[in-house]
Amino acid sequence: MSLGKVYLVGAGPGDPDLLTVKALRLLGEAEVVVFDRLVSPEIMALIPAGTTRIYAGKQMSKHELVQDEINDLLVSLGKSGRTVVRLKGGDPFVFGRGSEEAEVLSKAGIAFEVVPGISSASGCATYAGIPLTHRGLSQGVRFLPGHCRDGKPLDYDWSKLADPDCTLAIYMGLSNLQLIADELTRAGLPAHTPAAAIQNGTTPRQRRVLGTLATLPERARSAGLKAPTLIIVGRVVELAGALDWFHHDGDTDQAQPA
Amino acid sequence: MSLGKVYLVGAGPGDPDLLTVKALRLLGEAEVVVFDRLVSPEIMALIPAGTTRIYAGKQMSKHELVQDEINDLLVSLGKSGRTVVRLKGGDPFVFGRGSEEAEVLSKAGIAFEVVPGISSASGCATYAGIPLTHRGLSQGVRFLPGHCRDGKPLDYDWSKLADPDCTLAIYMGLSNLQLIADELTRAGLPAHTPAAAIQNGTTPRQRRVLGTLATLPERARSAGLKAPTLIIVGRVVELAGALDWFHHDGDTDQAQPA
Repeated sequence: MSLGKVYLVGAGPGDPDLLTVKALRLLGEAEVVVFDRLVSPEIMALIPAGTTRIYAGKQMSKHELVQDEINDLLVSLGKSGRTVVRLKGGDPFVFGRGSEEAEVLSKAGIAFEVVPGISSASGCATYAGIPLTHRGLSQGVRFLPGHCRDGKPLDYDWSKLADPDCTLAIYMGLSNLQLIADELTRAGLPAHTPAAAIQNGTTPRQRRVLGTLATLPERARSAGLKAPTLIIVGRVVELAGALDWFHHDGDTDQAQPA
Repeated sequence: MSLGKVYLVGAGPGDPDLLTVKALRLLGEAEVVVFDRLVSPEIMALIPAGTTRIYAGKQMSKHELVQDEINDLLVSLGKSGRTVVRLKGGDPFVFGRGSEEAEVLSKAGIAFEVVPGISSASGCATYAGIPLTHRGLSQGVRFLPGHCRDGKPLDYDWSKLADPDCTLAIYMGLSNLQLIADELTRAGLPAHTPAAAIQNGTTPRQRRVLGTLATLPERARSAGLKAPTLIIVGRVVELAGALDWFHHDGDTDQAQPA
């Protein structure tokens, strides 16, 4: 009997062309795919018809319980000797709790591998024409979540985040966008710092709203942006005009001069 | 006549299985591939025999000139009407100056696309068993370069980098590792903060050295690590034992209890 293996696989931000070669191959070989809410329909369509699919999309209201159930499920499937793909949006080891699932598998003695995916920050920024770093504009990039679990308020040392030399890529920060902009401004980032919000990045449904720390919250509201949305803060957003290479049907870009 | 197009393509950290589906397809279709020093031999081997290859590996000593030459070359190839892949290690928009090349193409009116790649930070960390974020250990991750151009000293506001809640992924920081560890400690990170150095990550030549801010510089020296090496600093490195899923021939892991 095969011993089974669980592959924790990053699906990337949405465009199926951004799957890794390994991820695509594993989707074709898997006996079971356990997938998240954030995996795009275009990627789900690549899974062969005969493959068992289990939806593990998390309900925010009972997050902890559901994660425990997912962990148990992965252990149980792993022990059954099947080839299991645990398919997660973005990169399994950047937010998304892939490392918690890997820990559980490791403790249970189940063989596993981790397949990195294009992070949402990288994919969404690139398809919005925004480099995460750029000589003279940014010395680096910081990825951080823009919301807390369990309805707690965001708890950051904002003075460490307010670094004009570092791009911020903020995951799932739409509902806290006003707060984030206010706190970053209070901590010392200029109100005219360019900022962008990108909904459904890399897919044909991508929408991009440009502004500044002062203007982006209102512009994102006016545009009616919805989750999942990535927020980018930093001078690199200045390049979004010149580097806007990704065009698609139904473009609803709300770009305005920052 | 075809108008030509230049694809700025991320090759990822080295494992050819981590190429994106789009990158692999473009390598098969390209008429010309302009490649960097950091693209792995395994990936170069995937380029069809008839494709023109141009080596654009940078010499550190005359970096600026060579980048200008690369820019001119890409414009010239783009104008020739050919399908050109500009293949860069890691992700074109995370360090690596992909956005500078995109700007030059945009100004010259040449059609281009950007294909994100698995960043070195993500790939090397994952294959070393280290998540970039983990609930309870890290609220996010910051990517930064560990060396300066033109031999200048590293110039950071270290107090903003010394955030115990944020993983640091430091690119090309091996030669400054002692300085980085000293500065981060002086700025407030505990000397016992776990840290790792990963050479040739994701390839069969991967080497991993574990330690702390206090011990890693000496351990990396003893192990004789060489560039390219990624440095990771943060409590997530604690998981490198439990999550060490990647095993390969010739493992020279120098891991010791941190």
